[in-house]
Amino acid sequence: MKKRVPAVLFVVFSIIIYSTVSFAYDQLVVKKVFELKEYVTLGGQKISPVRIGYETYGTLNATKDNVILICHHFSGTSHAAGKYATEEKLPGYWDAIIGPGKPVDTDKYFVIGTDTLCNLNTKDPTVTTTGPASINPATGKPYGMFFPLITIRDMVRVQYELVKSLGIQKVRCVSGPSMGGLQSLEWAVTYPEMIEKAIPVIAAPKNNAWTLALLNLWASPILMDPKWSNGDYYGKAEPMDGLALSLKLITLNARSPWWADAAFDRKPADPAKDPYTAMGNKFLVEDALDKAGLARASLADANSLLYLAKANILYDIGYGYSSYEEALKRIKAKVLMIPCNTDILIYPHNAKEFVEALNKVGGKASLFEIQTKEGHIGGITEIAKAGERIRAFWAE
Amino acid sequence: MKKRVPAVLFVVFSIIIYSTVSFAYDQLVVKKVFELKEYVTLGGQKISPVRIGYETYGTLNATKDNVILICHHFSGTSHAAGKYATEEKLPGYWDAIIGPGKPVDTDKYFVIGTDTLCNLNTKDPTVTTTGPASINPATGKPYGMFFPLITIRDMVRVQYELVKSLGIQKVRCVSGPSMGGLQSLEWAVTYPEMIEKAIPVIAAPKNNAWTLALLNLWASPILMDPKWSNGDYYGKAEPMDGLALSLKLITLNARSPWWADAAFDRKPADPAKDPYTAMGNKFLVEDALDKAGLARASLADANSLLYLAKANILYDIGYGYSSYEEALKRIKAKVLMIPCNTDILIYPHNAKEFVEALNKVGGKASLFEIQTKEGHIGGITEIAKAGERIRAFWAE
Repeated sequence: MKKRVPAVLFVVFSIIIYSTVSFAYDQLVVKKVFELKEYVTLGGQKISPVRIGYETYGTLNATKDNVILICHHFSGTSHAAGKYATEEKLPGYWDAIIGPGKPVDTDKYFVIGTDTLCNLNTKDPTVTTTGPASINPATGKPYGMFFPLITIRDMVRVQYELVKSLGIQKVRCVSGPSMGGLQSLEWAVTYPEMIEKAIPVIAAPKNNAWTLALLNLWASPILMDPKWSNGDYYGKAEPMDGLALSLKLITLNARSPWWADAAFDRKPADPAKDPYTAMGNKFLVEDALDKAGLARASLADANSLLYLAKANILYDIGYGYSSYEEALKRIKAKVLMIPCNTDILIYPHNAKEFVEALNKVGGKASLFEIQTKEGHIGGITEIAKAGERIRAFWAE
Repeated sequence: MKKRVPAVLFVVFSIIIYSTVSFAYDQLVVKKVFELKEYVTLGGQKISPVRIGYETYGTLNATKDNVILICHHFSGTSHAAGKYATEEKLPGYWDAIIGPGKPVDTDKYFVIGTDTLCNLNTKDPTVTTTGPASINPATGKPYGMFFPLITIRDMVRVQYELVKSLGIQKVRCVSGPSMGGLQSLEWAVTYPEMIEKAIPVIAAPKNNAWTLALLNLWASPILMDPKWSNGDYYGKAEPMDGLALSLKLITLNARSPWWADAAFDRKPADPAKDPYTAMGNKFLVEDALDKAGLARASLADANSLLYLAKANILYDIGYGYSSYEEALKRIKAKVLMIPCNTDILIYPHNAKEFVEALNKVGGKASLFEIQTKEGHIGGITEIAKAGERIRAFWAE
């Protein structure tokens, strides 16, 4: 079941959004597209062109120094706040803290949310990304596994070109949850002169062996699916079983027992189908995870998930420097780390150790831990709990 | 790659062990076989015959009241202590606490370890079990998915028949890690008059939605493998990819970040193959988990894993009683719960809540938490840390 946006529609869509005038954030959000004619990856490979979607809330001031950049998580998009249409069910993922009068105050700040390279949701018509599902101009076919490897730093370097194209020289703050937090730290290390503050949420300075192993497991079901065909599945039956299982695993890894127990307990999926009487009769939590995996898979691309998992596996702010300490010393931004106490995907001790290490080399780091029963995803669902701490951070 | 023990060899093996005289435990351990002509499951389905392997350490006293029963974990076997042969690399999984002069003192106690129904390791020649890989006498072929559903309580009811067959009326203590701990609690609820003490390690009174969801995920890769063929793969190519991925997932779920980081950090699997240069170039932890999954799969049976996952999913000591409290009130044994502080498969709060609940209805429960960086598996690898508490428990 392939729902790629036809090329013609894509052009029409691009024209519409390129020609749109800026709306205030409390009106509807408009998705825009940034295009780079050519981008050379950290690994030295050329991609031409590169397109990423972005959206903005609030107004860029005359001195262009009221910018807050929001980077998204593994399965997210640029849609951090507001709605694209009044009938949209839910607003962007961090709407609780982004908006007029909110901690990330769009009456003061010009907030930019961007799609990453290799965004997962290639079938979401609001997403613009360049990745393995994109057409390789050299062949006229999707890149598949011939797309170059990318890293979190590549995501950031493309965002840098976007920010520069808007005439912005300074970023007041870069923030984001999970993979968005990883991007925030890469920003602070890669462009230290440009970044005044960073708020990495549920993040770490590198993905250690534990998180790395979980990321490997997320990729594994896709590699096992015969329909994956080494990534050459475009225009054919896609590896939906592997993709759905991967997303089922991701859904659970980002949660916690308190969430699962409160939401599902040991209720059967169907009271008429007692789990004790047949192998296939499920409990509610099993059924809910199956459905979540399938629903998320309907917008996603399997190869893009592999590229994202690899980018996260490779994530280490020390990469390319003589040491982790050298990378730390580059950071000039004040950093506020926001872990969640029940996170078992990126444990909170990673953020604590980072804060200690940065302060030890003369940096300015502090930490606010969200107390939540939600697990990792608390960095999105419970971000409002950090609202007052974020407000206070602007004055520091 | 099928390595089932031929039927002829099985008979020979059975004869040898049936005719073996008792050895003292500090000599080599001898595996024996218990056979029930017929067993009717909790769900009312007949299995004939049922065979399970078992082994003993120490000597049964004249009054037959010095018995300690040890039940094994999900991927374990009866082999809790000692060695079958001098050249065996490692002793049984709880050898640290079972032996002459050890906390489970084989100079005093007669310790029995038993294989469960549907034991995972059907290709391990030391294992005797009855499950989906067993021959269905009605057809002369393996049961496959036509094997009846079993529960943890079924495992216990078969063990009860074994214990009775040895003329034993009272069990001083039943214990075991993880699924062995679940069996321990089912023993205490199902045969309250028989059980004096129970030491469930890394266990809970039911598998809540969180653990249940993880168990579902363990089964998922097998169901996705085309070679699984609805369980009808015996004598053909087996679903080894699904089975290996399942066991890779199980390996990680039973561990912790402190273990992963200490053992692997971000070292590459092969220094000549930089993970930053190719999708397939792995970090050491990725490679180690792949190899662990494959190694464990070589002795295991995919359908048996599905039946074990289901038995664990169904586990709830309150099942069949009017309430959880009614089940609790049945328990006459003194119970010592031993969780691990870093366990994220069966979180320690489950054990704590159980202790409170049992004491509240007049039971006698206490708790000792193993402080470990190993995660769930600390209930096996670090069981020695609970040694003194276990010694003290005998006098309570």
